[in-house]
Amino acid sequence: MTDRKEMRDLVSLDRARTVLGDLAVGGGTERVALQEASGRVLAERVDADLDVPGFDRASVDGYAVRAGDVAGAGEASPVTLEVAGGVEAGERPDVGVGAGEAVEIATGAVIPAGATAVVMVEDTTERDDAVEIRRAVPPGGNVMAAGADVAAGDRALGAGVRLTPRTVGLLAALGREAVEVRRRPRVAVVATGAELVQPGDDLDPERGQIYDVNTEAIATGVAEAGGEAVRYTRVPDDREAMADAVTRAAEECDLILTAGSTSASGADLLYRVVDDVGDLLVHGVALKPGKPTIIGRVDGTAYVGLPGYPASALSVFRLLVAPRLRRAAGVETERSMTATGRLAVDERFDEGRRRALPVGLVEDGAGETVVYPVDKGSGATTTLAAADGVVDMPADTRRLAAGSEVTVELFSPDAQPPALLAVGESDPALVRLLDGVDRNRFLPDGSRAGQRSLRDGIADVGVLAGADADGEIVADWRREWGVVLPPDADADGEPLSLLAAPDRTVATVNHDLGLRAAVDDAAAEAGLDPASLGGIETAGIESPARRVADGRADVGVGLRATAERLDLAFLPVGTQRVAVVANDDRLSKPGVGQLRAQAADLGQIVAALPGYER
Amino acid sequence: MTDRKEMRDLVSLDRARTVLGDLAVGGGTERVALQEASGRVLAERVDADLDVPGFDRASVDGYAVRAGDVAGAGEASPVTLEVAGGVEAGERPDVGVGAGEAVEIATGAVIPAGATAVVMVEDTTERDDAVEIRRAVPPGGNVMAAGADVAAGDRALGAGVRLTPRTVGLLAALGREAVEVRRRPRVAVVATGAELVQPGDDLDPERGQIYDVNTEAIATGVAEAGGEAVRYTRVPDDREAMADAVTRAAEECDLILTAGSTSASGADLLYRVVDDVGDLLVHGVALKPGKPTIIGRVDGTAYVGLPGYPASALSVFRLLVAPRLRRAAGVETERSMTATGRLAVDERFDEGRRRALPVGLVEDGAGETVVYPVDKGSGATTTLAAADGVVDMPADTRRLAAGSEVTVELFSPDAQPPALLAVGESDPALVRLLDGVDRNRFLPDGSRAGQRSLRDGIADVGVLAGADADGEIVADWRREWGVVLPPDADADGEPLSLLAAPDRTVATVNHDLGLRAAVDDAAAEAGLDPASLGGIETAGIESPARRVADGRADVGVGLRATAERLDLAFLPVGTQRVAVVANDDRLSKPGVGQLRAQAADLGQIVAALPGYER
Repeated sequence: MTDRKEMRDLVSLDRARTVLGDLAVGGGTERVALQEASGRVLAERVDADLDVPGFDRASVDGYAVRAGDVAGAGEASPVTLEVAGGVEAGERPDVGVGAGEAVEIATGAVIPAGATAVVMVEDTTERDDAVEIRRAVPPGGNVMAAGADVAAGDRALGAGVRLTPRTVGLLAALGREAVEVRRRPRVAVVATGAELVQPGDDLDPERGQIYDVNTEAIATGVAEAGGEAVRYTRVPDDREAMADAVTRAAEECDLILTAGSTSASGADLLYRVVDDVGDLLVHGVALKPGKPTIIGRVDGTAYVGLPGYPASALSVFRLLVAPRLRRAAGVETERSMTATGRLAVDERFDEGRRRALPVGLVEDGAGETVVYPVDKGSGATTTLAAADGVVDMPADTRRLAAGSEVTVELFSPDAQPPALLAVGESDPALVRLLDGVDRNRFLPDGSRAGQRSLRDGIADVGVLAGADADGEIVADWRREWGVVLPPDADADGEPLSLLAAPDRTVATVNHDLGLRAAVDDAAAEAGLDPASLGGIETAGIESPARRVADGRADVGVGLRATAERLDLAFLPVGTQRVAVVANDDRLSKPGVGQLRAQAADLGQIVAALPGYER
Repeated sequence: MTDRKEMRDLVSLDRARTVLGDLAVGGGTERVALQEASGRVLAERVDADLDVPGFDRASVDGYAVRAGDVAGAGEASPVTLEVAGGVEAGERPDVGVGAGEAVEIATGAVIPAGATAVVMVEDTTERDDAVEIRRAVPPGGNVMAAGADVAAGDRALGAGVRLTPRTVGLLAALGREAVEVRRRPRVAVVATGAELVQPGDDLDPERGQIYDVNTEAIATGVAEAGGEAVRYTRVPDDREAMADAVTRAAEECDLILTAGSTSASGADLLYRVVDDVGDLLVHGVALKPGKPTIIGRVDGTAYVGLPGYPASALSVFRLLVAPRLRRAAGVETERSMTATGRLAVDERFDEGRRRALPVGLVEDGAGETVVYPVDKGSGATTTLAAADGVVDMPADTRRLAAGSEVTVELFSPDAQPPALLAVGESDPALVRLLDGVDRNRFLPDGSRAGQRSLRDGIADVGVLAGADADGEIVADWRREWGVVLPPDADADGEPLSLLAAPDRTVATVNHDLGLRAAVDDAAAEAGLDPASLGGIETAGIESPARRVADGRADVGVGLRATAERLDLAFLPVGTQRVAVVANDDRLSKPGVGQLRAQAADLGQIVAALPGYER
C-alpha cells in the first residue's frame, strides 16, 4: 500500500456536469411496435399519409338527409321522408339519398351519396317505411368531414415527443403499427470490490463481506432516467481484471458507471485503471457526499466512477449522471420535482463543499410540510431509503436555521410524506401494529431518538421503551427481557452476572435503545457495575440474540420473544413498558387515527408474542 | 333497428366512482426478482434478518488502533505505533491489534480484534514498519458498528411501499434477490366495432373502416395506471360474439374495459350484452364527454363500458377508471398533477353536465402559463394529442371568462408547455423548418385559425398563407398552387374551369385554409363564380391531391410540390405567400429564437420543394 495520492484539484458540480455533458452518450434510433412505444421518445416526424376519418362520417345515430329537404322542419311542422335503407358503421352504403328520402345511419357510418347532413334520432319518429323529422339541420350538420381529425399531408407529430396514451392513440389512428424512437442509452453498471456478494448468495461477515447494493440501486436509477442497464458483477478487485471489464463495457455500452474504488488510497485502483486504458478528466468533485467522483473516457465511451457508499453513489448519480442520461434519452427533466417546507432542526455544515443533505418529509397537524434531516452517515443505505429528497446547500452555507423554509429536490415526482411517521424503539408488537396502517414510515432509531423527534416536532408518534414523553398514549404494552444463551447452555445463578463474565464473548445493545437502560438499571439494583457488563454493543433489538444463535457471541441481552423464535435459552430478568406516544399536534392526522384503530387489535398481537402482556 | 332506449337516469361522476369503487378489482401478490421490482408495490413486510453491516467496519482508509494508545497524539506530539499488518475490504483479518500496535486498514474492511478506532490516513505518516499518528481518535471513531445501518430484527420496509432505486438498494443490502409485490391488475381491453381495422392492416375508407385507436390508447393508459393490459381485438359486432368475448375476459382478467357500442341506439349492443350475462349497474354518466358510460359486473368481474370516441374514452378512463386501477395496484395518485394558468378565451357551456374541457398550455413572454381550449370535437384523436390536460367545469358552470385563473389537471406529471407553439396553415416548408426546433407543437388548423390564435394571445407564431397579421415576420416564402389531375390526364384551357365541370368529381379544401382563399380569388379574377367551383371540401392541404391519386376524385386543388411528389399531373394557377409571424410578446422565447435560427436554412428547404421560392 504505497503510492497514495490526494485528490488535490476538486472541481465544482457545475464543472463536472459540463465535462460529462461534452462527452458523447448514446445516440441512434430503433424501431419499436406501437404496443411498446409508450414512454419512448419519437425519433421521426410523423406526417399523416391518410385522412382521418377517411370518409364523411355520421357523428350521431339518426337519419342521413338532404339538408334542404328538412330546412322547414320543426316540432309543429314535422317533415316526413321516405326511408330508403340503412347503413351501419363498417359498411359500404348500398343506397343513396334522393330528394325526399332519408337513410337510417349509425354513429361512425359512411354518409351515403346525396346526403348532406344527419338528423339526430332524438328528433325523429319512425312511421312504417317513413320517418318524421322534427328539427332542421344545416348542411354538414352532425357530419364529421373526411380529414377533419387529421388531414392527409399534415404533420401529425414532430420528432422529440415523448409518447403517451394520447399520442399512441393518434399513431394508431394513422395506422402505424411501429415507430422510430430514440434508442435508450446502454449503461454499464460495473461492480468492483472483493467484499461484494450478490443478493441471494451466502454472506460471510467475518470475512468482511457485504451484499452488493450499488449494482441494483444504480441499475434501477438508470432505467428511471431512460437508460438500459447492463450489469457487470463479480469483477475481481485487481487492476488487470478491472481494466478488462471497463474496456469490454466501453465496447458494449454508451456510458460506463462504476461504484467504489475511486478514492485516492492505494487500494482504490479505478482512477489508475482509467488513466491507463483511457483519459482521466476529473478526479474529485467539491460535493458532499461525492468527493471521490471520477469522470473519464475509455475508447471513446464516457465513464463515471461513483463513490462506493450507496448513499453517496446514488446522490452523485442523481445530481450528475441522471440529467445527462435523460438528455441522451430525450426524456425531459420532470417538472414539479420540488417541495417546500419548514426545516425542523438546525443544520450546520462547515466543510466548504456543496452539500446534498438527505431529508424526509412529514406533515404537521395543520397539513404544513416539515422537513427533517435523515443522516445515518454516507455508509448507510437506510439514509437513502428513509429520505424523500435532498436540500441543496451551497458551499458557503454554514447553517440552516430551524423553522426556515427550504426547498427539497424530490427523488421522484410522486414522493409524498408518509401518512404516519413513527420514530423510536424497535419492537415486534409495534411492527405488527404498523402493518395495519397505510403508508407508514418507521425509523427504528431507539427510544432516545423517539423522545428527541417528538420534542423537535418531527415524529407523529414516538415509540418509547422505559421512557416517557408528553402526549397521548395511543397504545402500550409490557415486554419481558433477559439473558439469551445457546440452546444447550447450562447456566445458574444471577443471570445478569453472565453478562459480566470475562471469559465469554458478550453482546449487548447500545445506549440508544430503551432496552439498554433496563439492563443498566437492573444491574445497579443487583449490585453490579453497569460498566462491567457487556462487550459488543449492537444497534438492533435482536442483534445480540442473533450473535448467540450463530456462535459469534456466548451470551447476550434480548427479549423472550426473540429467544423463543430463534430457539435459544432464555433467563428472564424483568419486564419493560413500551408506549406509543402521539405528538399533541398530530392527533387529527388520519394516520394517527388509523394507528389508534389498530390498537384495538393489540390484545391479539400481544397474545401471540411470548413474554408480552398489556 | 328497433328497441332504441334512452339513457334516462344519468348518475354523477362521484356516484359512478363509488359504484366502481365498491366492485373488486384484482388483488393477490406475486414474487418478482429484485431486478424487476422497481416501481412495484411491496406486498410483504421486510424485516432485517441480518445486521448491515454484518461486522464492525472501517469507514475510512487508515490505521486500526486502540483508541487509548493515541489519546495524547497531536501535530506537536505524534505517537508512533508498530504496524502489525494490513487488512483489505473482503478479507478476514489475520492479525489483531495489541497494545502499541496498529494495522493498516482499507475502507470497508473488518476491524481487527483488539482495535477500537481507526485513524484516518491523512493524519499519519509511514515510518518503515511503524506509523506516526498525529491526531487522537475517540473509541469507535471512524468505525461503523455492526448493525448501525440496519439492525437485525428491525423492520426494514413496511408493506405498501412503492419500490425505488433507494428502497431496491436497501433490499439488496439485506441480500434479498426477490420480493413479494402486489400483482398488477389484469385489465381486458375489448375492441368492438365492425368498422375497426388494426394498425398495420389495410384500410378501406369506402366501407367506412377506421383504424382502432382505443385499444392501444387505453392499453397504454392501463399500463401507466399500474395495470397489465390484455387485448381482445377483432371481436365481431354481434351480440353473441360480444357476450363470448366479455365472458372470456371475465374469466381471464380483473377488470373488463370496452370502448364503443355503449349508447342507447339499436346497434349499440353492449348494455344489453352486460344485462344478459351480468349486472348492469350504471348506464349513463352526467359528464361531457362521457355520457354513454356503462358500469357493470360480469361473473363477479368489474366491467366498464367506455364511450367509443377516443377522446371521450380516454377522458372517462382518466377520470373514472385510472384512479380505481391505481388504488387496486397500490400506486398512489401522483402529486403535483396540476398547473394553474390564465384562460386565453371565453369558454361557455350550458348542457348542465360536468365537463372535462381539454386544454393546451403555452408560456407567454413573461413566462406565465396561458391555458387554451383544444377541441376539435370528441370524435377527434387530435383533440387529445394536442391537449396537456383538462379543466374540470362543474355542471353549474356556464362560463369561464377570458383572463380568469384556472387549474389544469395534467395528463402526466411531466406535461410541460411546448417550447414553441405554432398555429396555422399546413405547409411542407413550415414542417421542415419545425424539424429543427425542440419541443415544438404545431396545430395545422389553417390560416384563419392562425390569425385568431395570434389575436387571442395563444400562438407564439402564426403560419399565414395569403393573409397578414401584426408581428415580426420570422420567415416567409412563396408556394405554387394549381389544379391536380391524374397522371395521364389530358386537359386544355383554363385550369380553374376544370374545378367547375359538373361531370367530374372535384375535391377542394375548406375555407379554413389560405389556399382556398387563393382559389376563390383566382376564380373571381378569371370571371368564374367561386361558388361554382369544387365539390368535396377537405381539411388538408394534400387531401384533394390524394383523392385524385387514389381515384376518389377526378380533379382537385393542390400544391405543385404535392402533385410532383404523388406523381400527378399539375396545371399551375398562381403562387401564394406563406409567412410565419411571431406574436410581439413572444420574441424573447427561446423557441422563437430557435425558429429564427432555423430560418437561415430556408434557402435549402425551399430549393428542395418544387414550385417553392423565397
